Amino acid sequence: MNRLENVAIVGVGLIGGSIGLALRQRGLAEKVTGIGRRQVSLRIARRVGAVTNTSIDLAKGVAGADLVVVCTPVGRIVEDVRRAAEYCPKGTLITDTGSTKRTIVEALDTGLPRKCRFLGGHPLAGGERGGPVNAQPELFNGHVAVITPTMNTRAEDFDLLEEFWMSLGSMVVQMPAAEHDRALAMTSHLPHVAATALAAIIPEQLFRLTGTGFWDTTRLACGDPSLWMQILELNRDHVLSALEEYGGTLAALHAAIRDGNQAELERILTTAKKNRDALGS
Amino acid sequence: MNRLENVAIVGVGLIGGSIGLALRQRGLAEKVTGIGRRQVSLRIARRVGAVTNTSIDLAKGVAGADLVVVCTPVGRIVEDVRRAAEYCPKGTLITDTGSTKRTIVEALDTGLPRKCRFLGGHPLAGGERGGPVNAQPELFNGHVAVITPTMNTRAEDFDLLEEFWMSLGSMVVQMPAAEHDRALAMTSHLPHVAATALAAIIPEQLFRLTGTGFWDTTRLACGDPSLWMQILELNRDHVLSALEEYGGTLAALHAAIRDGNQAELERILTTAKKNRDALGS
Repeated sequence: MNRLENVAIVGVGLIGGSIGLALRQRGLAEKVTGIGRRQVSLRIARRVGAVTNTSIDLAKGVAGADLVVVCTPVGRIVEDVRRAAEYCPKGTLITDTGSTKRTIVEALDTGLPRKCRFLGGHPLAGGERGGPVNAQPELFNGHVAVITPTMNTRAEDFDLLEEFWMSLGSMVVQMPAAEHDRALAMTSHLPHVAATALAAIIPEQLFRLTGTGFWDTTRLACGDPSLWMQILELNRDHVLSALEEYGGTLAALHAAIRDGNQAELERILTTAKKNRDALGS
Repeated sequence: MNRLENVAIVGVGLIGGSIGLALRQRGLAEKVTGIGRRQVSLRIARRVGAVTNTSIDLAKGVAGADLVVVCTPVGRIVEDVRRAAEYCPKGTLITDTGSTKRTIVEALDTGLPRKCRFLGGHPLAGGERGGPVNAQPELFNGHVAVITPTMNTRAEDFDLLEEFWMSLGSMVVQMPAAEHDRALAMTSHLPHVAATALAAIIPEQLFRLTGTGFWDTTRLACGDPSLWMQILELNRDHVLSALEEYGGTLAALHAAIRDGNQAELERILTTAKKNRDALGS
């Protein structure tokens, strides 16, 4: 990627902070401006080397940006992109990293002020522990980053964003926003709900009888409830469908165990193992 | 622990192999005899240093044992313990490492031949990748090992088994076998079923859109289907109850998402996070 002069990152949590760290450590941006609402997060982001400059004033923070990356919680992205468009240089590309895409892309696909353009993104990387203190420069390396172009997307914007994620080590996959949301309901949002339900029902007296299996299976439940309430709301229909499919398979497992239907039980266990083995890691 | 002269391990997979490795590397046993049905596994167990001697003949393998540890799949344990009792030295303690305990303990609590005695055990450690090739000497270090004594258990047998697991680094917890099974249905068997259902429904075209969250949540699905069919059958009632409780919480999450009931959604997400955060790791 051609070195960028100034990348503005709105929201310097785990994702925003990791983007900044990666840009800095890979020498991809001269200046990385972190914009946030809390001085304490911005100070941490600067201390860990994720940003070179900070601002709690969005207007000032995006003023000289070549590229604006909005990494705030999904429920705030539309508003933050619109506000950034008002203050960043005319015609700047703005992207995001939200876990849901359709409502965001539909709201921002056209009509941004001052010829700014939005192109949605979502790096499939993260962690349960948020905040810039947990930022990692290699967070995106080897992971997929989804870009969700529309009929209105300019080729040069797509190319810039593709190059951006590739330069951070990601493999870029493009798809329509609606397709992204349907897929992520199954690969990310459903696992979050499944882990949550499991962690919610374990009684405290059984904590000592948990092991690595329980820990792995429920790790997602450490995620921030307020972030996840927004994600589940913005992808409601697909999440509900995924939950219904999951419930159906759990019911089939329940019936097979109850009835001693070894053939059916083996079929489901074997299918699951084949799929999971194919994923590695 | 006083150094044992000869520990016989029946079934040298991941668990049996790891016990052997730990005994050897910690200098706890002079001789560790691995007994199995397949020469290839026994050869691997010897090559990785898990056992000093091997036998495919149970009668010969247990002949000089001070302690017999049966690490075969749960569906085979009762038979393997009974057979070991016929051939090991008179009055030897035999234990196991099975993931279910009630049916095994009930079948073996009294009446073993030649004054041999059985005391059930279950180390809460493991991994999805089985076989002696994956054995680790520190597999049990820092993890709980459950011992399930009965009214008939001799104090000296309990003490020996407690010392055995503690010498491998485990923290010993004792409880009745039925209580173990009810607890493990929730902490181990339900997570396995939950992970299985999730891994079973993911379509192949979405594999590339999975990330660490999906991988963690479904890791248990890599387990051996035939082992898990036995576990789910032997702990059927408790597993079904746990599945029903899980289904109820998933249904509550579904309703809260569908109805936009943010208060209920937050309540469940927050409970889950509090529980999971308390577990660490």
